[in-house]
Amino acid sequence: VRIDDIELFYLAMPRILDIGDGSQDALLVRVRAGGLSGWGECEASPLVSIANFVCPMSHSACKNVRDTVVGRQIESPADIINLGHEVRAKGMDIAQTDHTWSGVEIALWDVLGKLRQAPVYQLLGYGRAFPKTPYASQLFGDTPAETGQKARQSRQQGFRAVKFGWGVYGRSTFEADRAQVEAAREGLGPDGILLIDAGTVWRDDVEQAALRLPALEDVRAMWLEEPFVGEAVHAYGQLAEHSRRVRLAGGEGASNFHMARHLIDHGGIGFVQIDTGRIGGIGPAKAVADYASAHGVTFVNHTFTTHLALCASLAPFAGLESATLCEYPVEPSPLAASLTTEKLLPIDGQIQLPDRPGLGVEPDLNAIRPYLVDVEITVSGRRLYQTPHLE
Amino acid sequence: VRIDDIELFYLAMPRILDIGDGSQDALLVRVRAGGLSGWGECEASPLVSIANFVCPMSHSACKNVRDTVVGRQIESPADIINLGHEVRAKGMDIAQTDHTWSGVEIALWDVLGKLRQAPVYQLLGYGRAFPKTPYASQLFGDTPAETGQKARQSRQQGFRAVKFGWGVYGRSTFEADRAQVEAAREGLGPDGILLIDAGTVWRDDVEQAALRLPALEDVRAMWLEEPFVGEAVHAYGQLAEHSRRVRLAGGEGASNFHMARHLIDHGGIGFVQIDTGRIGGIGPAKAVADYASAHGVTFVNHTFTTHLALCASLAPFAGLESATLCEYPVEPSPLAASLTTEKLLPIDGQIQLPDRPGLGVEPDLNAIRPYLVDVEITVSGRRLYQTPHLE
Repeated sequence: VRIDDIELFYLAMPRILDIGDGSQDALLVRVRAGGLSGWGECEASPLVSIANFVCPMSHSACKNVRDTVVGRQIESPADIINLGHEVRAKGMDIAQTDHTWSGVEIALWDVLGKLRQAPVYQLLGYGRAFPKTPYASQLFGDTPAETGQKARQSRQQGFRAVKFGWGVYGRSTFEADRAQVEAAREGLGPDGILLIDAGTVWRDDVEQAALRLPALEDVRAMWLEEPFVGEAVHAYGQLAEHSRRVRLAGGEGASNFHMARHLIDHGGIGFVQIDTGRIGGIGPAKAVADYASAHGVTFVNHTFTTHLALCASLAPFAGLESATLCEYPVEPSPLAASLTTEKLLPIDGQIQLPDRPGLGVEPDLNAIRPYLVDVEITVSGRRLYQTPHLE
Repeated sequence: VRIDDIELFYLAMPRILDIGDGSQDALLVRVRAGGLSGWGECEASPLVSIANFVCPMSHSACKNVRDTVVGRQIESPADIINLGHEVRAKGMDIAQTDHTWSGVEIALWDVLGKLRQAPVYQLLGYGRAFPKTPYASQLFGDTPAETGQKARQSRQQGFRAVKFGWGVYGRSTFEADRAQVEAAREGLGPDGILLIDAGTVWRDDVEQAALRLPALEDVRAMWLEEPFVGEAVHAYGQLAEHSRRVRLAGGEGASNFHMARHLIDHGGIGFVQIDTGRIGGIGPAKAVADYASAHGVTFVNHTFTTHLALCASLAPFAGLESATLCEYPVEPSPLAASLTTEKLLPIDGQIQLPDRPGLGVEPDLNAIRPYLVDVEITVSGRRLYQTPHLE
């Protein structure tokens, strides 16, 4: 089918808070092809990706995403993968390119699935989608008591696994951090799976991170996530050598397959966490899943936002039976919570991808229309972008 | 001094050609602080960086560059470095952040140098700026004869070193590529320094690149640049093991210190090429220069555009006597050629950074005003950006 049109919709909460909650806005992408509509989402900063989608050419390796994609044909998974290579080559000198392409790529898989009447995980070659154990992904409480309360609540809601991240963790003393993770373990109970996310707080300071390891071992945290910025691979590698029982997790910042591969090759991580809305979509995420499973590293999705993003992030590792955990957003903004008509709710404590064609969820246009942000970009008197109608 | 204001100017040739010439547009940055003006430049896609400079916050690690920088104080090099850490942390989830910050950071060094009446290389701790041997950096001719002619012409203009890149190279047979590099050597003469730039044409295909090595060895090319995309570190490492005499060069795509470090640690490169307009400015480039020289790798600037970009890219390794080569643009667009009042012209075949305070060159506002592009970005009825007056 021919890719006839691509529309980008910037959605945002009326007020954005200065907290680590990435669900406060969204960039929704609709691809129209062969009479079908496919949907995807880009992680992070809608305005920057919109500009990248329409920007004037700077030179032969510095072109926008739109002009490479609109009007092209896709008939197979390989067509999507190859189109991605082309977008990256033509947009090589624009750092944002993979982020922007991500939402478009996801929507193309949705189109192709609808065309073939197959769920995306089947297009990726998986015979079935194994159920995953969701971990309730949330921010640390401001106090240990609050964190403990959040953990108890998640347990009561049926979550066996819980992750706390960002907020105060790593920002005061290591004793304060110990109190936080002890409260989390206490609230969760002895048999729950506890995951801790440092949100890159120590940048590349191995010593600061190593100071927290004993407490994490004492509370039997399964992983310490993002102690460092994603590109500080050597710091991951050094910390991994210090750590006896707590595995390192990272990779959500990976903008391409290679960045994730470096963390596997040289960072000593036990879990690689991929956001399909950032790494260039479902194709590159599947390549990481393949590489990880060949190298003894467990793939996990990174998803803190909507159920559209969740479906897109689950597909790449749906068929890997040994990758049992999945991130599951439990504190979405009202915008993120209402974005899709269908939800992936836990059944007997497990999350199962739908067997519907494509991604298996559709945006709820009436619910999200109030969040649509008006944007206009004009260059040399030509209007390059104006928010399209959401209907 | 207080950073009072930052202005971004999108400059472009009236017609942008679909060729590998990155000098066809520019994003010029002016910082006003303490009554002084400092100037910098961002590499690549002005519109995307403008959007990143003003975009609304998405969450606590997804903020624009402007709000973190305007109103802040800088008194020392450490203040600029630390402000960079803060910009990166607050803009972590926006892939474009380091590109956008680059031009602002460069302008801050220019301000600080003017404030202290010292050239930037001295602020970086260098006692003197050693002269560098410029290599005439240009695109391959469409035919071997044309490439040979370009090489002869460079030699006649006094260049001992010449680099050919992009264009047809790597896009047809390896015999055709051999004819190109043989013509380059013949035109340059037996004692010239010949450098070849593949412009990432083989993406991560080691075999394709290895096929070209014998011809490159036969013509005594000093380096093969960017056989692969910058993030394909493992491919660099594998090719380096194949190569006996031709060294690998790369790094221009590095968006941060760590990406360049990976190429040094795991890519087996002999030359690391850094663009201060992309890596986050002069501070991160200096960190790479220090790391490279401690690890036996030679630092080289990446500059294909203006003499403002050239001065910014020379400062980080000005004081390294053993790093004798520098990239020197010889095919700038009329826009790039006229951007600065002063030029760094070769003297006795060598390039010398000026000893004037700051970067040592100033934009020629009258010359570039005709290239100014009108941009307007409006979000929710608020005009976030409008091209400022260039005066």
